[in-house]
Amino acid sequence: METLNIGLIGTGFMGKAHSIALKAAPAVFDLPAQPFCDLLAEVDDALAERKALELGFARATGDWRLLVKDPEVDVVDICAPNYLHKEMALAAIAAGKHVYAEKPLALTAADAGEMAEAAEKAGVKTLVGFNYIRNPATQLAREIVASGEIGELIHFRGRHNEDYLSDPAKPLDWHVQRATAGAGALGDVGSHILNMAEYLTGQRISEVFGQLQTLIPRRPLPDGSGGMGEVENDDQAQALLRFDGGLIGNIETSRVATGRKMGLAYTLTGTKGSIIFDQERLSELQLYKSEGLPGRRGFSTLLIGPAHPDYAAFSPAPGHGLGYNDQKIIEIRDLVVGIAGNKPLYPDFREAWRVNRLIEAIEHSHVVGSWIALH
Amino acid sequence: METLNIGLIGTGFMGKAHSIALKAAPAVFDLPAQPFCDLLAEVDDALAERKALELGFARATGDWRLLVKDPEVDVVDICAPNYLHKEMALAAIAAGKHVYAEKPLALTAADAGEMAEAAEKAGVKTLVGFNYIRNPATQLAREIVASGEIGELIHFRGRHNEDYLSDPAKPLDWHVQRATAGAGALGDVGSHILNMAEYLTGQRISEVFGQLQTLIPRRPLPDGSGGMGEVENDDQAQALLRFDGGLIGNIETSRVATGRKMGLAYTLTGTKGSIIFDQERLSELQLYKSEGLPGRRGFSTLLIGPAHPDYAAFSPAPGHGLGYNDQKIIEIRDLVVGIAGNKPLYPDFREAWRVNRLIEAIEHSHVVGSWIALH
Amino acid sequence: METLNIGLIGTGFMGKAHSIALKAAPAVFDLPAQPFCDLLAEVDDALAERKALELGFARATGDWRLLVKDPEVDVVDICAPNYLHKEMALAAIAAGKHVYAEKPLALTAADAGEMAEAAEKAGVKTLVGFNYIRNPATQLAREIVASGEIGELIHFRGRHNEDYLSDPAKPLDWHVQRATAGAGALGDVGSHILNMAEYLTGQRISEVFGQLQTLIPRRPLPDGSGGMGEVENDDQAQALLRFDGGLIGNIETSRVATGRKMGLAYTLTGTKGSIIFDQERLSELQLYKSEGLPGRRGFSTLLIGPAHPDYAAFSPAPGHGLGYNDQKIIEIRDLVVGIAGNKPLYPDFREAWRVNRLIEAIEHSHVVGSWIALH
Amino acid sequence: METLNIGLIGTGFMGKAHSIALKAAPAVFDLPAQPFCDLLAEVDDALAERKALELGFARATGDWRLLVKDPEVDVVDICAPNYLHKEMALAAIAAGKHVYAEKPLALTAADAGEMAEAAEKAGVKTLVGFNYIRNPATQLAREIVASGEIGELIHFRGRHNEDYLSDPAKPLDWHVQRATAGAGALGDVGSHILNMAEYLTGQRISEVFGQLQTLIPRRPLPDGSGGMGEVENDDQAQALLRFDGGLIGNIETSRVATGRKMGLAYTLTGTKGSIIFDQERLSELQLYKSEGLPGRRGFSTLLIGPAHPDYAAFSPAPGHGLGYNDQKIIEIRDLVVGIAGNKPLYPDFREAWRVNRLIEAIEHSHVVGSWIALH
Repeated sequence: METLNIGLIGTGFMGKAHSIALKAAPAVFDLPAQPFCDLLAEVDDALAERKALELGFARATGDWRLLVKDPEVDVVDICAPNYLHKEMALAAIAAGKHVYAEKPLALTAADAGEMAEAAEKAGVKTLVGFNYIRNPATQLAREIVASGEIGELIHFRGRHNEDYLSDPAKPLDWHVQRATAGAGALGDVGSHILNMAEYLTGQRISEVFGQLQTLIPRRPLPDGSGGMGEVENDDQAQALLRFDGGLIGNIETSRVATGRKMGLAYTLTGTKGSIIFDQERLSELQLYKSEGLPGRRGFSTLLIGPAHPDYAAFSPAPGHGLGYNDQKIIEIRDLVVGIAGNKPLYPDFREAWRVNRLIEAIEHSHVVGSWIALH
Repeated sequence: METLNIGLIGTGFMGKAHSIALKAAPAVFDLPAQPFCDLLAEVDDALAERKALELGFARATGDWRLLVKDPEVDVVDICAPNYLHKEMALAAIAAGKHVYAEKPLALTAADAGEMAEAAEKAGVKTLVGFNYIRNPATQLAREIVASGEIGELIHFRGRHNEDYLSDPAKPLDWHVQRATAGAGALGDVGSHILNMAEYLTGQRISEVFGQLQTLIPRRPLPDGSGGMGEVENDDQAQALLRFDGGLIGNIETSRVATGRKMGLAYTLTGTKGSIIFDQERLSELQLYKSEGLPGRRGFSTLLIGPAHPDYAAFSPAPGHGLGYNDQKIIEIRDLVVGIAGNKPLYPDFREAWRVNRLIEAIEHSHVVGSWIALH
Repeated sequence: METLNIGLIGTGFMGKAHSIALKAAPAVFDLPAQPFCDLLAEVDDALAERKALELGFARATGDWRLLVKDPEVDVVDICAPNYLHKEMALAAIAAGKHVYAEKPLALTAADAGEMAEAAEKAGVKTLVGFNYIRNPATQLAREIVASGEIGELIHFRGRHNEDYLSDPAKPLDWHVQRATAGAGALGDVGSHILNMAEYLTGQRISEVFGQLQTLIPRRPLPDGSGGMGEVENDDQAQALLRFDGGLIGNIETSRVATGRKMGLAYTLTGTKGSIIFDQERLSELQLYKSEGLPGRRGFSTLLIGPAHPDYAAFSPAPGHGLGYNDQKIIEIRDLVVGIAGNKPLYPDFREAWRVNRLIEAIEHSHVVGSWIALH
Repeated sequence: METLNIGLIGTGFMGKAHSIALKAAPAVFDLPAQPFCDLLAEVDDALAERKALELGFARATGDWRLLVKDPEVDVVDICAPNYLHKEMALAAIAAGKHVYAEKPLALTAADAGEMAEAAEKAGVKTLVGFNYIRNPATQLAREIVASGEIGELIHFRGRHNEDYLSDPAKPLDWHVQRATAGAGALGDVGSHILNMAEYLTGQRISEVFGQLQTLIPRRPLPDGSGGMGEVENDDQAQALLRFDGGLIGNIETSRVATGRKMGLAYTLTGTKGSIIFDQERLSELQLYKSEGLPGRRGFSTLLIGPAHPDYAAFSPAPGHGLGYNDQKIIEIRDLVVGIAGNKPLYPDFREAWRVNRLIEAIEHSHVVGSWIALH
């Protein structure tokens, strides 16, 4: 069997999650190629070596530029901070590597576009880690919508709210500065729900009307000096949406939504049924259908099981529950299947570029106070 | 003890709910005056008499114009169709009666304004039946917000979605025509959440940006002819909101939200806590507070009980649950207390006028595609 | 229309609940007779007069013995403390009155039997206030079971747990003494779930195996002396059950179940479906049915509405929610319909006697450590 | 770093789950030794080789007797059918291997005892896969109980109900025959809740009173002949429990509980608080504490996160959710830590023996109709 050598850059939250998934995926799925944890890059050799040992990579380097050019590496897996994505991805593409990157892909739509076009020109495959769309519950929601089982969609409601910056005493960090993060909540978590809105509905967002707010305009400098630094992007945002199929909807996103830890949720209303989902209960979906006796209609709690997408590979027993990292295992499966089979990957850089454009349209709309059409 | 003679016009859903509440309220609360079900008006004498017997009124009339002028009647209680509110209320006011009317108060803001000003000029008291704000759970939410217990409010999310017109085969009725209903979902159910947004937050909505949609543009004529008639108002609507205290938020409303039966719900996010409420589980409130050990924080389900507003009058035992009509009993208590004690009533015609203005601002904003400030 | 004059004894939690329901019932239901709040008895004249005014009774007396013999009174409604039920009921029966009494009917099965036999001999009607079986959600559960919609029942699980005596500093009161309460949690709240077990399943409990426990054996005397008095009955109890139709099951009951306020709940498992109910969310029922595609099966939340028993009389709109007192309104309807139409009432004194026998069988089983058959 | 060579026998549901966990564990946790997927045994060489490739084992054999004696294997991991556990484990112990086995350990308590004693005599380590106790939510529940945070425990309620044999058309298989399964639901899933009862409470069950029932006494033979075979063990069971610390409780277990997929759930009632957990929502715990203002008390939904046991190794972000296989990853961590550090493992064969004894005591109690003390 073919082996896909993975070169991982970055070992934070996401780098570790990718490593776990790379290790587990071959035991979960029957893969057409074997992903191999080959080379790991960190900011210096010592850290890289320690992390390679911890996460189970064969080789280590303190220089990501070596990694992207390493002849053994088939796929460059970018889990470094967002502001580095562009440089790393372009270097990897230039070296002819497939690129698997975390979201949001870039700080600006222009950067994302440059990356997408470079990848397409080079003929390499790309995949961006919008992992929540891999959740079998969300795959199921999409299937139900696509099949017409709940009729024609008439409303989309989505949110991705968390509270990780709720505490105003939390010092200034990369999340809150333009140069390192681009947009704020809208980019960091809002990007998930924007991508998911199109994934679930099968429609493109054609116009947006947005509103952004920075609630904590200054935060303590991380140097402990007692000085304060400026927060440069949004703490919370919301938008009304028009889709190209006539659907309307709205989204909310926040990093200061006190009490919300994994607050990605959506309601899909159709003419013959509705779906409700909350990622804090990631292995269940609420489904309502306008059929049968009126006195027997209600939202049903479907516990995800082998009758639903991808679950059976994890367990033959229904309702046993998948976790966060299992979504990444499915993502790895899709990466490997796509590369090994030379098939399209979703969402690729072009799709992630679209998310960046949606973010910028919402920001722009906020400034000008009117609907902004997506070109 | 003083007696307040009630003259009820209309005996549909709301007329019956008022009757039940008028009968029960004196046994529930220690009232300063005794509401008496004195005179009932319906469209003809026969129906009026039958309904008076059913609902326990002493007298009956087939002519509401007699009722509003009847010297024995102290309070005119208008539960007739919305398009009749104005004429009835103005006649009652002209006769010097206090007026208790169902919502939405009027078909247009201009009408509502005329009614409010007439009442104020006449010095009569008015109350409009936005009964969901009487729910002890919602009263509790307001108390928590007002006390600062969850810090400063930073986001309001509200919806009032139902599905009573979800079936496209349902014939044309008064709900869907401008001349009888004014706005559609936005007026019928959206009015509740707009009123509640201000009630809960203690802030005034200062600007709105709205979007409306009619999904089922034509419905069968009710005459069974097979002909179709035009739906003239919105099936669903949504809006972004700015409040005068700096708060932002959004609302949704629908009469075609498949599966939602009593879908009034809100999330109040504060800097130190959050509240979640859903009227389909009307006797509980979810409360999160950023205090105590991180590992012990979560949304708590508060079952409404004697420690909360107004509940103890219904039961000394917590968690036993209140129902829809109990909200109306509390409303009757407020009506009687206000009139007997000559105190302000909330929400009065002026406040209901404001709701009509909010509805029209949202409609206007939809047309012009920009934020509309409330004057 | 006929009038049924009610003579109410006792004005605590239950006396007030009955009064509210007596006032509201005629506006809610189309009744064959008009219940009239005629005479109220309390421990002295002054209190009786004050309470008659508050609760809306026409006459008052400080002597219940006068009430039960009063020629105008048709139905004696006993809401006095449990230990007085027997004497009052026997006196009412002797005077030829119908009797409506709160649960548990008596302190012992022997007393309950004496009462049931006296009533039957006298030919008067009796009804006991097991009001939770009137909840439309629970009526619906029974209908579903009886219709075979979930197949044959194979398991019953019930509990009625509360925490009203959870605090050990709460002084000794009538609940905890044999002479005033009979059994403890088992009698006070457990009686509800025992009655409901038979109501829901349509089967008789044929054998029980019980276990009782007094966790707080002594409580402060209510005189504030600092002395302690003995708790004489159970704080919590549980039992395994065999039914005469072959079904097995178990129940739990407690008055010290920290955190539970209205913890009556049941699960009915059938060969083709299951039902879950929790009285803390009294207007919804969870229903699972083994039909349709495996991937679309789940517990459905049925919001109670006009398609279900008795709801439509309260509201034409589904999901609007009923409350505790609404259950009593339905009970009053059943009382009036039964008496006016000379039809059997359920549960009558004989049925309540059965509950007392079940309680004693569980107590006996606890002592002897073996299954006890119900004779 | 030391390597622990694993020899896996059996590649069904559990064999695959172990493989996934063995692969992922080193990337999740910082382990003192490296588990290596060395040798895999299946019923014949071809299957073994195919499965070794699929699950990522280095070597394969069609003869488990070779595996247990293989000098390279450090730990024998038994995921074969239950009736083979004893022979395999004794052979592994005889060869001086550590043994990691799935539950229930043995078909009878006598067998389990023989296995436990053999292991102890041989000085090898043993671990049995009661994986649900590894769930961080359940670890947290135990911590809360042990710390006294909810006072003294006064009641334990547990169930493990599923519906995998709900369909009477499902043919006879190993689950339903004594010679292959031992007890029925009580052994297969009830074993989990019995083990967990002691784990959570920190008390030993001292007496049981049980009731068992076989609802589907005959099932179609699997040969398709149309003949029927006898079901020899329980479809559902329930028991009352006494613990040695004075606590009482009850358990239920079923394999025919229509609608329940992963119905392991418990309620821990303490004098100062309570805990509710349901494995169908495995990453949250409901916690009630009798503290603070009465009007602010309720069950809090704690979303499991880095503040709770073991979660941080999977994700730094709270509420992101763990899945079934993550519990096995924690189990592998415990296995490796125990063996590498020569520390006690829990639950070992002696502890699993105890579970078999509890099962037999419940069965015995059912037959004799009285409490059975655990010796």
